[in-house]
Amino acid sequence: MFKITGKASDSLARTGELTTSHGTVETPAFVGVATRATIKAVEPSALEEIGLQILISNTYHLHLRPGEETIAALGGLHRFSGWAGPLMTDSGGFQVFSLGAGKEQGVGKIASIFPDPQHLPSKRRHGNSLVRLSEVGANFRSIVDGSPQMFTPESVIQIQRKIGADVILPLDECTSPLHDAGYTKHAMERTHRWAQRALTAFRLLQDDPTFPNPDAMLFGIVQGGAYRDLRMQSARFIRDLGFPGFAIGGSLGRSKDEMLRVLDWTVPCLPPDRPRHLLGIGEIDDIFAAVERGVDTFDCAAPTRLARNGTVFVRGAPRQRINLRNARFATDDRPIEPGCDCPTCQTHSRAYLRHLCRSGEVSFYRLATLHNLRFLVRMMREIRGAISRDCFAALAAEWRQATLSS
Amino acid sequence: MFKITGKASDSLARTGELTTSHGTVETPAFVGVATRATIKAVEPSALEEIGLQILISNTYHLHLRPGEETIAALGGLHRFSGWAGPLMTDSGGFQVFSLGAGKEQGVGKIASIFPDPQHLPSKRRHGNSLVRLSEVGANFRSIVDGSPQMFTPESVIQIQRKIGADVILPLDECTSPLHDAGYTKHAMERTHRWAQRALTAFRLLQDDPTFPNPDAMLFGIVQGGAYRDLRMQSARFIRDLGFPGFAIGGSLGRSKDEMLRVLDWTVPCLPPDRPRHLLGIGEIDDIFAAVERGVDTFDCAAPTRLARNGTVFVRGAPRQRINLRNARFATDDRPIEPGCDCPTCQTHSRAYLRHLCRSGEVSFYRLATLHNLRFLVRMMREIRGAISRDCFAALAAEWRQATLSS
Repeated sequence: MFKITGKASDSLARTGELTTSHGTVETPAFVGVATRATIKAVEPSALEEIGLQILISNTYHLHLRPGEETIAALGGLHRFSGWAGPLMTDSGGFQVFSLGAGKEQGVGKIASIFPDPQHLPSKRRHGNSLVRLSEVGANFRSIVDGSPQMFTPESVIQIQRKIGADVILPLDECTSPLHDAGYTKHAMERTHRWAQRALTAFRLLQDDPTFPNPDAMLFGIVQGGAYRDLRMQSARFIRDLGFPGFAIGGSLGRSKDEMLRVLDWTVPCLPPDRPRHLLGIGEIDDIFAAVERGVDTFDCAAPTRLARNGTVFVRGAPRQRINLRNARFATDDRPIEPGCDCPTCQTHSRAYLRHLCRSGEVSFYRLATLHNLRFLVRMMREIRGAISRDCFAALAAEWRQATLSS
Repeated sequence: MFKITGKASDSLARTGELTTSHGTVETPAFVGVATRATIKAVEPSALEEIGLQILISNTYHLHLRPGEETIAALGGLHRFSGWAGPLMTDSGGFQVFSLGAGKEQGVGKIASIFPDPQHLPSKRRHGNSLVRLSEVGANFRSIVDGSPQMFTPESVIQIQRKIGADVILPLDECTSPLHDAGYTKHAMERTHRWAQRALTAFRLLQDDPTFPNPDAMLFGIVQGGAYRDLRMQSARFIRDLGFPGFAIGGSLGRSKDEMLRVLDWTVPCLPPDRPRHLLGIGEIDDIFAAVERGVDTFDCAAPTRLARNGTVFVRGAPRQRINLRNARFATDDRPIEPGCDCPTCQTHSRAYLRHLCRSGEVSFYRLATLHNLRFLVRMMREIRGAISRDCFAALAAEWRQATLSS
């Protein structure tokens, strides 16, 4: 299922192959975020062309609409969406967080994303929790129709088996960076009990031929917030349950530095021969830092969200990006990134894309998103090549320099 | 420039070839509406694949953003947008109408589109004209930044030559279906004087090598509202100015029946050997009716707007369409139209598309739009074939039956 094919001598960076029944993912790999069974603005069939290897969809959203029964009736998420490659689903745990404590406290996975609560979008600032957690599971209301819903560790496994992804995840409680050690420990211990229940449910259903994907793998999720002892305790506990792979979830602290410390504590406690996924993180600098610390896969909505806002990746530019809304691109007839082989750069100029972006044309979203995804696909290939030749540190330093030069 | 290649024996329907320096359009043809240099939600490079022959962009919108100077600096609209095929631009006259009398009176090209003013979108109901017309031209404020703007017959020719389309149109006043015969006559006569000024300006600029497209053709526009004598007078006047092709513009009455009468009066007054374009009309039943009356090309935003709202064309369905939002498609794993060769039908089921549509996913817009455009491309090919074999009336009757059966 996972084979390590290369290792850096001076860091935990490694290359590997994660094999699923829908194909093999060469790692380290960026996982495209297809929350509601599509990457926003890009139809699944365009993704294979740009070399994207794997997608992650969202159990919470797909459960509410169109519902796992509908997806199962249509042969599972692969057939339903037209994406034939490897596919993950998350557990809904992050939505339980973001509609609960995240909404109450107005924070994301890393608290400092919103350094000043005054800068939060107003609808989040005074949010009340829409979620009630108990030992049994999470009660919440549907964002689609307000209907009462419940996720339990068992139901989330069943839902994901009906959806039919290759890698699925157990229900967890993703605590907030603002939660104290006491609450975080309490939540972590409940998440551990939920992990055991999820595993039991998964094993019970494993040989059930009615599910669309007989070869689903259940990865464990490590929690513990940004507390060293809790992270190490969680990593060891989840490791000992024997999952074939692991995800690092939950609060990653109050800054990117804290996030890196969380990885420094967590990864060495996980089995060296199993894949490690970092949930919800994947800006360019994060990817290099996480690969260096032994992470194999990442998913992150930022690259595609940035694209829709006009920010596109250009290697060597400050922070490796330009914003196409900038007036200096008004008559720039070069492609976004000269030399890029993406479909957008083959055809369109910065000037035209800027026009579409400023005009609010929906066609812009797709063109910009395809470029940013292809950029990451090429970057990950470069990372894998550098690890194979044991020069990853030099590559990371080269990229970091541009990233910090803004 | 225009060659008639076939004629029906029992109607004015005909096939032809409109040759431009960017390729030949086989007529009758549907002209895709790329208002701001893109069909909404579809990048230009996808259009060639589905066989769309010709696009129309909007002078008013492109003048305001990005501006004709920018487009000219980038080599003209073909190079700017990446669309290499035949291209029209309208004159901005319709926007002068829709922001002026259309806004005041809350009406479109055909008044009965909004039979009851209570059903108008509220922002249109109490609109005040944003346009002041005089013999010189049209004064208006930019919808982008509120700046004062002026179009004259001469400036609109200059703007369009800088944009660089293959077929361009003179500034006209598009009257409202609610205007009386006196006002409509007054406006028509001014439009005629503007047409003469446009032609003079066009001839003065004709050999100027600084424009991106040396082979632009200026078509005349027939006005006259839904008044028989005015339409015939306008058609003859505009015909006698010697344009290489003609557009039928303006108010087309209070119902679709009136629109057909307008065509019955107008077309026979135009030269039989020159192409005829019907501005802003192009629902399926309109296309058959207009082809029967001797129209060669049409542009209409309805097919792409319908697509974005979930209404997609299916031959043989009531009114040749289905709405994907309908619950009966929730688990329908057939393509939109079984047998369709569009990229959407090759890959995606109605159930998946319904999911994307209901979830508000932007990727839906493109997939649905591609289908509706490909449907029209195939329909127009079928129409041309039927005219060639002199069985257009039978084909029209076959389609009309389904169109009326809802």
